[in-house]
Amino acid sequence: MMNQLLNTLHIKHPIFQAPMAGVTTPQLVAAVSEAGGLGSIGAGYLSAKETMVFIQEVKKLTNKSFGVNLFVPENHTVTKKEMEHAHQLLAYCKEDVNLEKIPMPTLDLPDDFDEQLDVVVEAGVRVCSFTFGIPNEAQISKLKNNDVFLIGTATSVKEAQMAEQAGMDTVVVQGSEAGGHRGTFLEEDSYIGLMSLIPQVVDHISIPVIGAGGIMDGRGVMATLCLGAQAAQLGTAFLTTTESGAHPLHKRAILKAAETDTQITRVFSGKPARGIRNRFMKEMEKHEHNLPAYPYQNSLTKAIRSAAATEQNKEYMSLWSGQSPRLSKAITVHELMTQIVQQYHSMKNGN
Amino acid sequence: MMNQLLNTLHIKHPIFQAPMAGVTTPQLVAAVSEAGGLGSIGAGYLSAKETMVFIQEVKKLTNKSFGVNLFVPENHTVTKKEMEHAHQLLAYCKEDVNLEKIPMPTLDLPDDFDEQLDVVVEAGVRVCSFTFGIPNEAQISKLKNNDVFLIGTATSVKEAQMAEQAGMDTVVVQGSEAGGHRGTFLEEDSYIGLMSLIPQVVDHISIPVIGAGGIMDGRGVMATLCLGAQAAQLGTAFLTTTESGAHPLHKRAILKAAETDTQITRVFSGKPARGIRNRFMKEMEKHEHNLPAYPYQNSLTKAIRSAAATEQNKEYMSLWSGQSPRLSKAITVHELMTQIVQQYHSMKNGN
Repeated sequence: MMNQLLNTLHIKHPIFQAPMAGVTTPQLVAAVSEAGGLGSIGAGYLSAKETMVFIQEVKKLTNKSFGVNLFVPENHTVTKKEMEHAHQLLAYCKEDVNLEKIPMPTLDLPDDFDEQLDVVVEAGVRVCSFTFGIPNEAQISKLKNNDVFLIGTATSVKEAQMAEQAGMDTVVVQGSEAGGHRGTFLEEDSYIGLMSLIPQVVDHISIPVIGAGGIMDGRGVMATLCLGAQAAQLGTAFLTTTESGAHPLHKRAILKAAETDTQITRVFSGKPARGIRNRFMKEMEKHEHNLPAYPYQNSLTKAIRSAAATEQNKEYMSLWSGQSPRLSKAITVHELMTQIVQQYHSMKNGN
Repeated sequence: MMNQLLNTLHIKHPIFQAPMAGVTTPQLVAAVSEAGGLGSIGAGYLSAKETMVFIQEVKKLTNKSFGVNLFVPENHTVTKKEMEHAHQLLAYCKEDVNLEKIPMPTLDLPDDFDEQLDVVVEAGVRVCSFTFGIPNEAQISKLKNNDVFLIGTATSVKEAQMAEQAGMDTVVVQGSEAGGHRGTFLEEDSYIGLMSLIPQVVDHISIPVIGAGGIMDGRGVMATLCLGAQAAQLGTAFLTTTESGAHPLHKRAILKAAETDTQITRVFSGKPARGIRNRFMKEMEKHEHNLPAYPYQNSLTKAIRSAAATEQNKEYMSLWSGQSPRLSKAITVHELMTQIVQQYHSMKNGN
């Protein structure tokens, strides 16, 4: 199997670590790249300065290439009244997470996207991926002129075609199985399963495709390649590793979960994301379609999620997980990568 | 790759035709079995007598083994008032399908399940599959005593474990990608994508697993086997073949559809099923959770669907389809099977 993508990126195995914002650590990213995959910094919630610090930390740990993932800013607006209403809806959980009051965030949320792009270029990062949209022409040109390899994210054929047309070098297609935020940026999400999504996208674009969603082991990697992708991107599988920065209760929740325990919710951030069902998701479900869009709802629930983490209360934390938690393991990145690669190679070479 | 399932069933290729009730014809079933797969009669809507006639028709066309699929009856009830309310909700579409009035079905819907089991035994059918539940012990014993090979349907690990415990010889696991009715019979459906569902089920049961949902070609078959299944079951791929009994407008709708054009709906039958979005689905969506359960809603909409078919109006027909319509082809079963097998073998033997 000729693998153009691995050759271009100088990586050994067709295994990408999903850039999980808030969960990736320099240790995680470096360990994946050191093991022959492609590690990625989830910089979506970071300022430009924090992004630079993170990149430098990873560089101290590995000489191998790695990626930086950025959230493309959207144009959602919110009124003060909508924010106040959404703020009131959250008041009820104050006591449960031991907060005296839920802070009211500002309406002007900082947007460091252009500054983050400058950081990527300055720091000499070789791979940059995007979620929630596609950067504009000027932004793409700047990165291309600096030889940065660009990865788009799509959840449908149309989004993948747009990523290709905009000049992305490859595209991650995110199946309905995937944990965390949906990358959808066009119309409504149709939640296409990976078995359907990969071959239909592969048939409609010319750039390489990376499959993501529910992939946890060598079987999933091999299946993803059979469907026509050139690599598999794994998130939940890396989230429970020793090197991951996920809260211990988050890791434990995944390790104990069944495949039926997750659902897609907007209540944490204003944007659909898949996580393990907990009290906050159930209690807020009725308001789901009357909440401010991302990033406003995200800023509203931030203090609650942080307090819940401090209080060791998983019922108010966002327990992002894909649909394959039964396949998760509490091991190191090195162990996980070794197991995946062994299984994948034994399938490839024989059966 | 040792394939216990194919050996037991004496079939050549790991390709099962999904038993699509209302769409399978004797020609379709026989053609799949003749081509080395396993054809299956979708007998869910048939009486015992019709089931026998159908089986005899298939037997005239092939000596190869084939299956019969039955719907396991459920215990839903409905009141006269609920039926009348649901009936009123449908009144609005009378003119559109050229019906003078929408007939009111009886509350006592016939249930031929035990008689159908007798027919399966009498006719010497070798393979019997079940959807919407698991038969009781006496029913299972009768079939087993007559050497009928039993196939369960599951949408979660727990349902697959129940199928195994009940004595099923194998189980079809239906991913969220699948078209037509969901086979869920426990709790609420979590719509698990096949990439997640197959390996998690395989790790938790000992009987062979058959993957279903979104599989259309050799890539999908190969991916399904990589994930640990012993065969792939294809529905939508066979629905658009020459031999399929689907309405020409249904076939055409699939052939023209994008992967984002389907959604899961209860409005046609009272049970969740995936089909191509049309006017009836959109208009009835707001009532979706206040409709009588299957089979009552199904009996209520039957006249509308039939009239729509006669009137060549696809907006009121149930256009069942999986999430991979872009991969559908208007060809014969023989051509489709040849293409799938060639692609699958070339992947298996080389890459």
